[in-house]
Amino acid sequence: MPVPAPNLYPDFNIVRLSHVEYRVQDLAKSRAFYVDTLGLQVTYEDQDRIYLRAMEERGHHCIVLVQADNSDVGVLGFKLFDDPDLDKAAAWFASKGLPVDWIERPHMGRTLRTRDPWGVPLEFYVKMDRLAPIHQKYKLYNGVKPLRIDHFNMFSADVDASVAFYNEMGFRTTEYTEDAETGKVWAAWMHRKGGVHDVAFTNGKGPRLHHTAFWVPTPLNIIDLLDLMATTGWVDNIERGPGRHGISNAFFLYILDPDGHRIEIYCSDYQTVDPDLEAIKWDLKDPQRQTLWGAAAPRSWFEHGSVFEGADLKESALKAQPIIAP
Amino acid sequence: MPVPAPNLYPDFNIVRLSHVEYRVQDLAKSRAFYVDTLGLQVTYEDQDRIYLRAMEERGHHCIVLVQADNSDVGVLGFKLFDDPDLDKAAAWFASKGLPVDWIERPHMGRTLRTRDPWGVPLEFYVKMDRLAPIHQKYKLYNGVKPLRIDHFNMFSADVDASVAFYNEMGFRTTEYTEDAETGKVWAAWMHRKGGVHDVAFTNGKGPRLHHTAFWVPTPLNIIDLLDLMATTGWVDNIERGPGRHGISNAFFLYILDPDGHRIEIYCSDYQTVDPDLEAIKWDLKDPQRQTLWGAAAPRSWFEHGSVFEGADLKESALKAQPIIAP
Amino acid sequence: MPVPAPNLYPDFNIVRLSHVEYRVQDLAKSRAFYVDTLGLQVTYEDQDRIYLRAMEERGHHCIVLVQADNSDVGVLGFKLFDDPDLDKAAAWFASKGLPVDWIERPHMGRTLRTRDPWGVPLEFYVKMDRLAPIHQKYKLYNGVKPLRIDHFNMFSADVDASVAFYNEMGFRTTEYTEDAETGKVWAAWMHRKGGVHDVAFTNGKGPRLHHTAFWVPTPLNIIDLLDLMATTGWVDNIERGPGRHGISNAFFLYILDPDGHRIEIYCSDYQTVDPDLEAIKWDLKDPQRQTLWGAAAPRSWFEHGSVFEGADLKESALKAQPIIAP
Amino acid sequence: MPVPAPNLYPDFNIVRLSHVEYRVQDLAKSRAFYVDTLGLQVTYEDQDRIYLRAMEERGHHCIVLVQADNSDVGVLGFKLFDDPDLDKAAAWFASKGLPVDWIERPHMGRTLRTRDPWGVPLEFYVKMDRLAPIHQKYKLYNGVKPLRIDHFNMFSADVDASVAFYNEMGFRTTEYTEDAETGKVWAAWMHRKGGVHDVAFTNGKGPRLHHTAFWVPTPLNIIDLLDLMATTGWVDNIERGPGRHGISNAFFLYILDPDGHRIEIYCSDYQTVDPDLEAIKWDLKDPQRQTLWGAAAPRSWFEHGSVFEGADLKESALKAQPIIAP
Repeated sequence: MPVPAPNLYPDFNIVRLSHVEYRVQDLAKSRAFYVDTLGLQVTYEDQDRIYLRAMEERGHHCIVLVQADNSDVGVLGFKLFDDPDLDKAAAWFASKGLPVDWIERPHMGRTLRTRDPWGVPLEFYVKMDRLAPIHQKYKLYNGVKPLRIDHFNMFSADVDASVAFYNEMGFRTTEYTEDAETGKVWAAWMHRKGGVHDVAFTNGKGPRLHHTAFWVPTPLNIIDLLDLMATTGWVDNIERGPGRHGISNAFFLYILDPDGHRIEIYCSDYQTVDPDLEAIKWDLKDPQRQTLWGAAAPRSWFEHGSVFEGADLKESALKAQPIIAP
Repeated sequence: MPVPAPNLYPDFNIVRLSHVEYRVQDLAKSRAFYVDTLGLQVTYEDQDRIYLRAMEERGHHCIVLVQADNSDVGVLGFKLFDDPDLDKAAAWFASKGLPVDWIERPHMGRTLRTRDPWGVPLEFYVKMDRLAPIHQKYKLYNGVKPLRIDHFNMFSADVDASVAFYNEMGFRTTEYTEDAETGKVWAAWMHRKGGVHDVAFTNGKGPRLHHTAFWVPTPLNIIDLLDLMATTGWVDNIERGPGRHGISNAFFLYILDPDGHRIEIYCSDYQTVDPDLEAIKWDLKDPQRQTLWGAAAPRSWFEHGSVFEGADLKESALKAQPIIAP
Repeated sequence: MPVPAPNLYPDFNIVRLSHVEYRVQDLAKSRAFYVDTLGLQVTYEDQDRIYLRAMEERGHHCIVLVQADNSDVGVLGFKLFDDPDLDKAAAWFASKGLPVDWIERPHMGRTLRTRDPWGVPLEFYVKMDRLAPIHQKYKLYNGVKPLRIDHFNMFSADVDASVAFYNEMGFRTTEYTEDAETGKVWAAWMHRKGGVHDVAFTNGKGPRLHHTAFWVPTPLNIIDLLDLMATTGWVDNIERGPGRHGISNAFFLYILDPDGHRIEIYCSDYQTVDPDLEAIKWDLKDPQRQTLWGAAAPRSWFEHGSVFEGADLKESALKAQPIIAP
Repeated sequence: MPVPAPNLYPDFNIVRLSHVEYRVQDLAKSRAFYVDTLGLQVTYEDQDRIYLRAMEERGHHCIVLVQADNSDVGVLGFKLFDDPDLDKAAAWFASKGLPVDWIERPHMGRTLRTRDPWGVPLEFYVKMDRLAPIHQKYKLYNGVKPLRIDHFNMFSADVDASVAFYNEMGFRTTEYTEDAETGKVWAAWMHRKGGVHDVAFTNGKGPRLHHTAFWVPTPLNIIDLLDLMATTGWVDNIERGPGRHGISNAFFLYILDPDGHRIEIYCSDYQTVDPDLEAIKWDLKDPQRQTLWGAAAPRSWFEHGSVFEGADLKESALKAQPIIAP
């Protein structure tokens, strides 16, 4: 079954993914990971939470770390184009029978809080505090030199349904994996902002967040991060990579934060702004879709994910993905 | 005088810059430059013209080289979002008293031909022949490994007026240089596709094309190109760089093709999709806006440009830019 | 047991490792690997053999590929400092009861052929045909842009004995792995030319050649090679990497040629010319000595090697190395 | 006139260049330059002096900064192979009628202090305090990530004579520039440690130190340093580059410390251990010998240098070098 045709005229205009709230059990340890090791910049912090931005971002935050009892995900945030889009979004979610709440968020303007049909907590906004540029303050660059948040990747127990829902919101599929046996979409990459993806879905027990990705300048920054993590006590937090994905053509590294939230460090995808961009189809049996160079991913990469606060988990009806043995 | 507020709801939706037609006096020599040295891929060629694409492009061409008696620029091409945009664009140009012609172009669908108020030849289309992806055919990569066309930069004799006109078309200003003495905008960078620019304007005798830019993966590809050009007879075609622009934060190299058309090789700008992105203002007297590292550009870089076929040149009323001596 | 003190005044002066003769079963296929994929330059070829050099080498060859019935290793070659060193070397080998033959080699001057005590075929020379520099002929660079041969790594059934023998020849140990349980040296890296090694020995069934290594400019060249191999039919010849060795600090990739001869692509070791350089000791149980970043090597990497023509294999008395599971 | 044949059997064995003493007028400002900006590591400091090493060095220091009234150069230091070499060196200098003093140096063993015939202050030693390796302590890397001191470059008023003298000491010429009109050597690069040079001489008022060079991993580290200097108040200390030298094939950057001492940041030369390596001759009129890519060096680069404490300056008899205008 092919992915659905892109919806060129969605009810509301999502600009891009924006931020994620990670609930963490040891805020100081998370700070050591995200600030001292990855090099994200603190824009606000107190006893209970830390707000972070990457080097070229002018919005107030792309990650919120919240001290909590459970290591789960509080919300995925998206930026809308203009104020009317907020009301159109509210109407659209309401029409689907999904929750619509207007909430107060520090550093953000009017914010719509909802969930997708599988319980993934979402929030939409137009205005967030804007900060002065720091992308040319080179003294501040350290760690992996993270430039911007790039995408969310989620496990879904029904990828075809997830793709249909997010497609209706205007996310356009750039690449996908089809299970030839069942004709089902196994995984899909969907964008709003002109790269390979703002969100992606992979078959598995869901909904869960597989990872949040950050964009960095070159593969050498990823090598620098590996050297740094390997010699500062974080070697066990290196999960997979470096490598090249067949899908998206990304040069990647996967690491785990102290709570097990997975972060991808990423560069080298391609521009996808053409509305007639043809989605690239991959066969589930082609091992190069995952690692162009052929190395196998560890089992944890296929199985582990972060749960969303308040979302019920469901097993996928599709059989488990064949893991390529090393 | 600040740049105008972005027009978030233009009459028609321009996706991105798309292609340029360069008229050249020795097609074989131009082929040696663009294909054998830069590494662009030929998608069609005959006695009179060569069509080229970069490695991640699926549209048929980003450059058309046409054998001609004069070394000028035939047209700048832009891709629109959807068919209705073509008619809306035609209506908008007609409302401005500008020419509106529907022309036949090989490899392209319905094409609107017009000119901006200063005579710059423009064409707009929605459909161009789509080609199979080659971005993972690594055996084909050579030269500077050009990934995609990035932007056009033009001399304008009245930058304020050019910015106002292109702003009305929906181009959003990301950075600009102001002449504090006159309060005039000296130069401006404006985008549609989510990078620093699709088009830029600089004060000077105009309209002329200052350069067309190509995006490459990393600064090392630019160093590779320099080494290659320096040892294959093209050393005199290296005009400026490598360096870092203050404006746009780009790592750059400027080279001249056999007809003197200037090409920029470019990486490292930043994402600009936020509609509330604040334009960054630079002072005309700040030498770091041009070269963050302080090295002066050669005089030719300020003075030389390619004329547009059929456009009359006009001097700028602003006095010449202060060239920083080496 | 520590490694022996360096012998600062050996009987003869070895400048560096020089070349290897690989016997291969399909010369055309080997050419596709070494020339078309790795980018080594052919300096001579006929029906039966191909001579290759890397981009900064002026000696005639660093690899000789010989059409043969067996995929083994013909000889390891070393360059001596001056003519008298040849005779001193001959005397030294004779004094050890090892074979001493003066042989004719095309493209080489007077050549001493011998074997080490375990049967590894060795040849020593002072003069080899000198070729014009090509390191600035950037048009010739392709593949992984190999700059020079860097080292040989061998399995030895008695590493302590191998180290003692090569130490007496003047190879100085830079790093080594000790098996704390037995007090034996498990592996050692030894140099003449001022890098981490010209030769290395690892415990295992021996003598066998584990790999020959080539030096490249930066890690990005290794990434380029991976992309190229992965998309031109060589993906199954990628064995391990990319990664960083703890030992030597090298950024590495291991690949297999069509006959299973292992090639390492390598950059980032360090200068070792100080005669009082302290050897760095690693614990056999420290997994970061092999991969600083923690990823396991595949089993084949520990077990597979190329046999030397005419050398008898012997099992090591030490127990098998613990392979870190992925 | 060709350069002299290499002296393969010099009276004493110089291993490599080792360190330089810079006398500076504001120690705190020099610290900001060398430590906070370049990233060299402090190994000792007090009110009057700072000792520095680069990341892969285990010797105690490669630069000594000494608070002084004049911005000159105290001494150039070289490491000898073994203790007997020190006495042989003393005898050799004495035989030339040059000064021979045995001096006390903190952190160093027996030290021979002398001058070359033109007054350049030299010191030779075998033992210097050895420090624990830090090349894998990646948290310490910053600035340009300097790995090791690479070479000294000096103005000489008689390059032929300088080359003859240092050649007799065993420095071997790898590349040189000849003035075809006079048959004189204009400049020469000479090595001991197996790279393109430990010392170089260029025609001009001398003796003066043109620069001391540091080796870094890749060109990207040089770009990082440029970005850092350009945005932390050091932009005026960037003198020339980045670029590629024809001679040595080095990727280079020249910067000036607060006292005007010139530092080269450098990568990409080649291995020169072969004793029969043919010196490469360049024509003084070939502009690519200086900058392969064709850009001119600023006038200051040809004219400015650091004087040696206690050495008298002399003009060269050769006419001034043609400076290629930008």
